[in-house]
Amino acid sequence: MTFSLDPRLKAESFSLGALSLCEVLLCDDARFPWLILVPRKESATEIVDLSDRERTMLMDDITDASRALKAVTNCDKLNVAALGNQVRQLHVHVVARFQTDAAWAGPVWGKGERVPYEERAREALAKKLKDALSLA
Amino acid sequence: MTFSLDPRLKAESFSLGALSLCEVLLCDDARFPWLILVPRKESATEIVDLSDRERTMLMDDITDASRALKAVTNCDKLNVAALGNQVRQLHVHVVARFQTDAAWAGPVWGKGERVPYEERAREALAKKLKDALSLA
Repeated sequence: MTFSLDPRLKAESFSLGALSLCEVLLCDDARFPWLILVPRKESATEIVDLSDRERTMLMDDITDASRALKAVTNCDKLNVAALGNQVRQLHVHVVARFQTDAAWAGPVWGKGERVPYEERAREALAKKLKDALSLA
Repeated sequence: MTFSLDPRLKAESFSLGALSLCEVLLCDDARFPWLILVPRKESATEIVDLSDRERTMLMDDITDASRALKAVTNCDKLNVAALGNQVRQLHVHVVARFQTDAAWAGPVWGKGERVPYEERAREALAKKLKDALSLA
């Protein structure tokens, strides 16, 4: 299956690997521990563009990403969202939220400027998340 | 199963009926055609608090709500999100978005003031959505 990632998603994230349906990306924003799941079905822009089987796989991936983020960050809340108003390629945000974070209790999208990680901090978080997701 | 709806959700919406797992509400905001799905499992605050079977039912309900909104409104994009930073009871927003709407291309949450429907417009939209969802 050919699959290519939207250039904007690619520019603002780092790949952690492949889950059952989705590529899993770590969003390069140190303000919020934030995974992005991108189904390997490039033509899809909406969840309803997936087949029943693909939707089940997406829900499994959302569950795995949610549990991994919760375990690694001990966050107060998870935010799970498929928006796609700006990037059309179907992607699902899974964001660890804290009552002390820069956007609480509002949404993270469109809030201030992205703050790229320091390389060492990003690599440490990526390693923990990959371990929690059983990714090599 | 006992089930009660969070008072804030109740105050800002109208019930359209019951899907496989969720109560489906029409958000009382005339700016955006907006359904809210509330799983009949009051203790849940996160998608991962549901069982595998309940998650499958939730995805089915999201699919039905998405298709109904798309068919009734002919929207440009669907936004699907479980946030819960303000209301803890698990609920999933399914919002019909237009490139001409009051919040495009940003998210709808926390954007300006809610605009309640005129009664006749709300009843007309509710009827169309219930028909599309096969709700009595």
